[in-house]
Formats: sequence, structure tokens, C-alpha cells
Amino acid sequence: MLTLYDFLESGNGYKVRLVLHQLGRPFRLVLKNILRGETRAPDFLAKNPNGRIPLLELPDGRCLAESDAILFYFAEGTEYLPEDRYERAQVLQWMFFEQYSHEPNIATVRFWVHFMKPEQIDERQLAKKRELGYAALGVMEKHLTTRSFVVGERYSIADVALYAYTHVAHEGGFDLASYPKVRSWLARVVEQPRHVPIMKSDYGT
Amino acid sequence: MLTLYDFLESGNGYKVRLVLHQLGRPFRLVLKNILRGETRAPDFLAKNPNGRIPLLELPDGRCLAESDAILFYFAEGTEYLPEDRYERAQVLQWMFFEQYSHEPNIATVRFWVHFMKPEQIDERQLAKKRELGYAALGVMEKHLTTRSFVVGERYSIADVALYAYTHVAHEGGFDLASYPKVRSWLARVVEQPRHVPIMKSDYGT
Repeated sequence: MLTLYDFLESGNGYKVRLVLHQLGRPFRLVLKNILRGETRAPDFLAKNPNGRIPLLELPDGRCLAESDAILFYFAEGTEYLPEDRYERAQVLQWMFFEQYSHEPNIATVRFWVHFMKPEQIDERQLAKKRELGYAALGVMEKHLTTRSFVVGERYSIADVALYAYTHVAHEGGFDLASYPKVRSWLARVVEQPRHVPIMKSDYGT
Repeated sequence: MLTLYDFLESGNGYKVRLVLHQLGRPFRLVLKNILRGETRAPDFLAKNPNGRIPLLELPDGRCLAESDAILFYFAEGTEYLPEDRYERAQVLQWMFFEQYSHEPNIATVRFWVHFMKPEQIDERQLAKKRELGYAALGVMEKHLTTRSFVVGERYSIADVALYAYTHVAHEGGFDLASYPKVRSWLARVVEQPRHVPIMKSDYGT
């Protein structure tokens, strides 16, 4: 049995839950409360020295970290990763875009707004990250103007990676009103077979 | 002929130059001065809406962005990417670690120290990024304590990705004295066949 160490509100964890569900791969979910430092405890650091969820543990005990690397691991050889070499590289391009230009801004702002006390928030950093988050949404809007999905006109793990935090961006105060192509793409992702929402603990085990 | 849009001092650009050189793939280098906003000009944004180098342009005009996605594109089917599925996912794990936990701290501090005036630097952000940069180096030190290379005991694009900014970390004021395993790994990377240093414009064309 696969084990996924996760935090339910995490978009990064949700990506993995969604793809495992769509692939019909059962897994055991072990929750780690990142707000209480449970991913910095010695037992967890022994599995992932970088101290982050999601973390995948294979039945033989080997571990794999980084949400988008885990997606790639499961998607290889399936309909969720293109067979064409250039398209496969494009999927990675958008996953690296997500982790570098999108998640550190959109997900971080959501985390701050959700989990931190107002006096803990650096307003200047928040404004900077909000600006960069909107810039990332702008790149997506432009890209999706001529496309139904992120790569190759087919739903892939690039869509999963970008969907995870885009669809909850409003929880960080992002307004998608000016991003109609992004909004219609979000609706297409939800329509995919075996789609499951974020923050549910009653599936996958 | 391949075209690489690049900025010579960029470690992200250097990764691609290094791998293309090691693979014996000739390419045309087109320099874009990021300090003068040349990657935000309309002609460049038409090729990469995210406005960043390195950007690869294939002979047929198709483009690929994100340094680590470009590395993966060229490394598939070569000695620089493992054939084993789990090891391939581990390579991606370390490349995502590099782009999320390493580059935004170590490379950004180097950039600030190198290219910004002291009065432009937010000292609190600098201190925070320096702390996170050392944390990333700590994760590498621990990992390399029992390994010669990052994945599978063989030089791969995971080493290239992490080498790029680790070997110039001192230019951002990082002291590697307490990271002996990282330092001996840096030396092993340099010993690889057809290694080339950063910031050279006289090769590859």
C-alpha cells in the first residue's frame, strides 16, 4: 500500500490525492499538522530531510518528495502525461512555472491570510506577493486564450499542478474576475472523470 | 540550430549551457540583458510570456522555458537521466527542491549582493533568505553524506541543477566551510567530462 503524508488544506498535497484518485490507486493517508511543526519532527525528517508534505512512501519504504515529482512518477505511461517528448517537457515547464512563479505567491498569500494572525503578516511582502501572484495568473490567462488545457489540448498533470492553488486563490483574496479564460479552464478541470475536491479525508483509503 | 536566449551570469542559463556542451549539441547564444529589461520587451514576451531566461528555441521555432524542464528535455535517453522510473522521479524531486528551496534563496541573495545597490536591499528579507539558503545547503550536506552524487550514484541533471548556484553561493556571501560533503561533491561535478565553467561566451556556437 502507498502511504501519503499530507496536510488536508495543502494544495500541493491535494495534487497528489487528486491524481491517485483519478488513476484508481489506493493509498493510506497519514496527516501531519504543519501548523504544529509535525513535519520538522525527527521521525518525519528521517523520511524527508526537507521537512515538507506531501511525502510519498512506497510499499518498500522508499520515499519521494516534491508534489510535482510525485505527479510525474505516477503519470508516466498514463493518459495524464503526453507521450511526445516536447509536450512532456512542456508539462515540466508549467510545473516548474507553478512551483517558482505561482505557488510561492498565490499559495503563500492564501496561507498567510488563512493561518496567520494579522499582526504576523508583513504587509509589504503581502503586497509584493499579491502583485506577483496576479502576474502569474496573467501568464496563465494569456496562455489559455488559445488553448483548452495547459499542454497538448489534453488534461495532464500540468493542469493538476496549476489547478491546485488557482482554484482556491480567492481564499487568499485573489479576484479572478479579470481572468475569464482561467475561470473556464478551472471549470473544464472539474469536469474531468473522477475529479475530487480539496480537503476531503474520506477517500483514498 | 538550437537557439538559447540567456544572460551569462545566470546560473539557470549556465545549467543549460553546461548540459548542451556535455551532450555535444551546438547552439546559438543570444544574450538578453535582464538588468535592462530585455526579457520584458514585446519580442521576447512573444516567445516566453513569463519573461525569463533561459529560453530555448528549437530549429522549427517552438520554444521551451524553465531551466530544469530544458535539462530534462535534452537528458531523456542519455546518460544524464536515469532509466529507472523511481530514480528519474528522484531527479525531478531534487530539481523541484532546487527551484523551490534553493534557488529563490541562494541565487536571489547572490543577485541582490551582485547587482543591487545597498540601499535597494531589504535587510530583513536578505537575512531571511540567507537563513533559508543555509537550510537548503544543510539538506544537501545531509543527503551527500552517504552519496557521491545526488541520485543513483551517478552524475545526472540533478547534479547540474544544484551545482549551478551552489558553486557560486560564496558570491552571495554564503560560507561553505561547514558543508564539507557539499564541497567535495562540487569538486566531483567539476571533474566530469566536458565540464565548462559559468560565464563564458566563447563556446557552444
